[in-house]
Amino acid sequence: MTTDRILEGLARREPAALARAISLVENQGDGFERVLSRAHRLLGRGGTRRVGITGPPGAGKSTLTEALIQRFRAQRLSVGVVAVDPTSPFTGGALLGDRIRMESVSLDPGVFIRSMATRGAQGGLATTTEEIADLLEAFGFERVLVETVGVGQTELDIARTAETTVLVLVPESGDGIQTLKAGIMEIADLYVVNKSDRPGADKFRQEVEVMLGIRRGNAFRHMAPHHRSDGRTGGRADSTGPPSDGPPVQPSGRWEPPVLGTVATTGVGVDELTAALDRHYAYLQASGMMAEGRRRRLAARTRAVLERKLRRWLLEGTRVEELLASRLDELADGRRSPYDIAAEILDQVKAGGSATR
Amino acid sequence: MTTDRILEGLARREPAALARAISLVENQGDGFERVLSRAHRLLGRGGTRRVGITGPPGAGKSTLTEALIQRFRAQRLSVGVVAVDPTSPFTGGALLGDRIRMESVSLDPGVFIRSMATRGAQGGLATTTEEIADLLEAFGFERVLVETVGVGQTELDIARTAETTVLVLVPESGDGIQTLKAGIMEIADLYVVNKSDRPGADKFRQEVEVMLGIRRGNAFRHMAPHHRSDGRTGGRADSTGPPSDGPPVQPSGRWEPPVLGTVATTGVGVDELTAALDRHYAYLQASGMMAEGRRRRLAARTRAVLERKLRRWLLEGTRVEELLASRLDELADGRRSPYDIAAEILDQVKAGGSATR
Repeated sequence: MTTDRILEGLARREPAALARAISLVENQGDGFERVLSRAHRLLGRGGTRRVGITGPPGAGKSTLTEALIQRFRAQRLSVGVVAVDPTSPFTGGALLGDRIRMESVSLDPGVFIRSMATRGAQGGLATTTEEIADLLEAFGFERVLVETVGVGQTELDIARTAETTVLVLVPESGDGIQTLKAGIMEIADLYVVNKSDRPGADKFRQEVEVMLGIRRGNAFRHMAPHHRSDGRTGGRADSTGPPSDGPPVQPSGRWEPPVLGTVATTGVGVDELTAALDRHYAYLQASGMMAEGRRRRLAARTRAVLERKLRRWLLEGTRVEELLASRLDELADGRRSPYDIAAEILDQVKAGGSATR
Repeated sequence: MTTDRILEGLARREPAALARAISLVENQGDGFERVLSRAHRLLGRGGTRRVGITGPPGAGKSTLTEALIQRFRAQRLSVGVVAVDPTSPFTGGALLGDRIRMESVSLDPGVFIRSMATRGAQGGLATTTEEIADLLEAFGFERVLVETVGVGQTELDIARTAETTVLVLVPESGDGIQTLKAGIMEIADLYVVNKSDRPGADKFRQEVEVMLGIRRGNAFRHMAPHHRSDGRTGGRADSTGPPSDGPPVQPSGRWEPPVLGTVATTGVGVDELTAALDRHYAYLQASGMMAEGRRRRLAARTRAVLERKLRRWLLEGTRVEELLASRLDELADGRRSPYDIAAEILDQVKAGGSATR
């Protein structure tokens, strides 16, 4: 399928064209940026909401994602899903039972599910995932879910390309709490304690709330609220509202991340989760954070695209590999260092001179 | 401390100079590449072995690292450690008990432990970690351990900058098996099932062996051995040797990753682990993989350094930000796309023209 054919098919809303467009972007094939550039015109019109869902393996993210899809479908909303998750049934990593269960939603024409391999896309995975979410939005899906597994930097970067980030934990996530302590988990807008019918769930949920400074008992709660460099607010606001019952009180106009309990397998708490997603969306709009966040993400994306283009040009359009090969012996025996050689190559690139083909 | 002073201090093997050099590299401060370039001359002389240790949170990596340090110290080998691990006692994430226990080795002058924050070093974390390991090698540590937590792409990339990669699992690592299934875990040279006194440990170890194709029952075992693109061999070799007792049989000359059982808290299996590390090192040398791997890593590093330099130049030395700011309205309303603007900027950079300050 040529790029023109893909673009025509996308305009006619053909699922096959969407699938091809996604493959093109995933493989960075010829013309992929042209397709994305065209899709860009259709973005940001307010018809689509993006939700990033992440958490440690085994937290039940896929089941929760499925429950969310069903809830959205009951509201007649179309749903596109990108799953970047080696353990997800979408990507074939999980038990057969899960996969069969998922088929119930994946056969629905109002649902489009795409899994992404995490291999090979090193460094650029967050950008590629965001680009695929762009295609889903441009195609007209009203909800776009981005599911990743893990609490590493890459996984968090991906989940945070969405407007709303949900972190899913389970009562057994002792490591979750450790990571929270390390400050890494301040990234989410909503926290979900799934499998909350298990022993220790209430205690764990309270621990998460203490950690986030929502509940008394946290050493941080008398500190000034922590503003994050990306313009989102941290979860350490002082609150006198009810700690875990009902919606969080936001007297200051800041978003205070709620900690919700769910049992995804039975659907308990999923209505509250969709309600919290709506509240966060309304908050983003009312506060101006939506427009601000979008501009910030567009600038970040342009930088990422520029870096990718530059890297590609550097490695393919210049004599870098040739130069590198000719210096490898000197590198190995210590006569030259990676820094000398990189500087030499960069000088040539800057001069637009002999390193350029 | 000036760069010259740091270099003098490093030559005199002053720990304070090493600590300053590491901070300089971590912050990419003025002159950091000069220090690394000088250190490069001292690398690859064979006195140092690098071991990467990774695995999911709670697998007991820190305790195992501590046990390894003690074993190396008993052999009078000096040990440098870089811990990139939000849950590690080195980085302050874990329980107080662990931290106190670790102090026994951290007060030993033959041991140098450095923790790294994972925040802020997005994208370049693997390179920075490898550079800090370089400093430890250049300083003369005979064993350099690189500890990361998680099985995400970033964590694996980091662990694989070492000559030998150890993946630590626990019997409860159900997700471990799922990730194995997804093929991600083919990255390790040695597999350790820690806490192997727990129920289900033998069964889990067998499952890992089946998954790796060491033990009968794997659908892959009749397939051709899987050669990885980076020159390491995969673990799917057909073997008729004993599955879990004694060293793995390697009739073909390929390395077959052993699956070892340990109880890090009591030291069970740690001697076997150090013996397996020695075997892997001997294998790398005898097969020529050591020299080959080193050249491959040096080439990869030079590319990474070049990309970093280029990115820095692009974002600091050119008018990119200015251009981006002036185009942000057009980006937000869809008149321009990130791809148009990135192409415009790249054209200017290539022309060495108006985008350059």
